[in-house]
This record gives sequence, C-alpha cells and structure tokens, in this order.
Amino acid sequence: MKTVLAKVTIVSERLLKDELIALVKEAGATGFTLAAVEGEGSRGVRAGDWEGRNIMLETLVSPETADAILATLNERYLENFAVVAWVTEVSVVRGEKFLGQA
Amino acid sequence: MKTVLAKVTIVSERLLKDELIALVKEAGATGFTLAAVEGEGSRGVRAGDWEGRNIMLETLVSPETADAILATLNERYLENFAVVAWVTEVSVVRGEKFLGQA
Amino acid sequence: MKTVLAKVTIVSERLLKDELIALVKEAGATGFTLAAVEGEGSRGVRAGDWEGRNIMLETLVSPETADAILATLNERYLENFAVVAWVTEVSVVRGEKFLGQA
Repeated sequence: MKTVLAKVTIVSERLLKDELIALVKEAGATGFTLAAVEGEGSRGVRAGDWEGRNIMLETLVSPETADAILATLNERYLENFAVVAWVTEVSVVRGEKFLGQA
Repeated sequence: MKTVLAKVTIVSERLLKDELIALVKEAGATGFTLAAVEGEGSRGVRAGDWEGRNIMLETLVSPETADAILATLNERYLENFAVVAWVTEVSVVRGEKFLGQA
Repeated sequence: MKTVLAKVTIVSERLLKDELIALVKEAGATGFTLAAVEGEGSRGVRAGDWEGRNIMLETLVSPETADAILATLNERYLENFAVVAWVTEVSVVRGEKFLGQA
C-alpha cells in the first residue's frame, strides 16, 4: 500500500512562486502543496509580521525526479536567490500515482 | 530523550477537516497540527489565490497507529477524494507520551 | 550537492515565538522558517477557528546542533509548556552553509 518517495521542500520568496511551480511540473511532479511562511536565513529571507511573505512548496516525486528538481534549483536559484531546498524520504499511500510522469 | 515515531501527514480539502481529525483521534493519536495550504494534484485539488482552501493535518503516532490511519484513509478516502497521505520517520523529544493511546 | 542535515521542528503557542527563535539561533541555527498553525495536544494546545494561534518553527542544522536544541527545549519547556519538538533527517542542497555556526 505504501511507496517510498522523495518529498522535495522548497522555501523561497513569494515572487518565485509561479516559476517554481513550473519548474517542478516540468520535472515531472503531478501535484504540489503551497503554504505561506515567514523565515530568516543567511541570504536575507526576513521574518516579517506574519504576512506570509515567503512560500513553502512541497511535492512528492520519485528519487530521480527529486534529483532533477534539485539540480535545476541549484543551477538557477541557489546562488543568487533566497531559496532553500531539501529532500525527505517518505512513505506514501498509493504512491504509484506520483510516479506517473517521472 | 528521543523516541522514533511516525509522523502522518494528510493533505485534503478543508471540508474533510472534522472527519479527518476524528479519524486520527479514533486511531489513537493524542494530538495533531493543522495548517491552511493550497495545492494542486491529479485528483483536482486546485491552487487558489491563497485562501488556504486545503488543510495539512499532521500527527505523531506509533508506526502501528500510522498504519491503521493509512489503512482507514485508503479504504474511505483515497479512491474518491482529493486526499494525499504520507508517513515520515521522526525522532521526538519525550515521545513516549504520543504512544499513550496507541 | 546534498548534505544530510537535521531538520528540527518545534510546535508551540505563539507567545513563545521570540524565545524559541532566540534559542535556535543561540544554538547555531543560521536560519529558520515559521508557519502559523492550529493544533490540539495532550498539554492543552487547542484547535481554534483557524486564527493560527500556534507556530511551527523549522530550522536546518547539524545533528549536533539539533541535539543541543532538543536538550535546551527539554530542560526549559517540555515539562510546563505546550511545546512539541521533533527531528527529521533531510538531504539539503548546498547544505554546507547551514553548518557554518554549528
């Protein structure tokens, strides 16, 4: 019933929202979740007064698709933008459907 | 000081909120966290204009309770609702208390 | 490209926000993410009407820094406050920068 997948989490400024959604979809993600968050980091992501200035985007994908997403993020964003990304191993119910476009 | 537990994450339409809270409590969860999220998926969960139309419910439980929650979700929701669920292994401080009703 | 790090997640009443931010920074965290959440737990964290009464604070740190954060939380908060904390192992892109002040 469970499939081991990679959950990719990306935290960034909100202005990158549409670009990042396009990026994960092009890499093969079949869906995603977005939350409004605040934050503070070494590259200037600031903690505001709870306006949800940043986004946290999460998507469940195959380990290969996760690597592809991270490589593209690394190439395009991590040097010059306040973007942080990580991967968590998770067990997903009926996870096969997330592999469809991998 | 740390106990390895299962964190169950459920993303769904908000209208299922009360049902899902009841489901995890009946399975033995002693607490939960809820966040308002947006999303898009293969079953029609749509990304809106940040109204937080969906929920992300998280609960820390024993691996056995996690399996019971996933089985019930699979049986009742995953076929016909825009529900996604996964389990992450986590190390919890003073985690014993989360096993109380397992 | 990826570094295995510890993601520490702390859920608490909002009134502890500044104290908890100070705590993780003093332990060596170089950044953090905050989200407004609701919740219910054994120590009285209540599920409200979506006012985001609680916070979820997350920070990516070395395993050693994670242990230091958890020990301090355990000492100062876990007995008497509605605070829950856990650690998840994650793979972070360009994760070295999170180890800077560890």
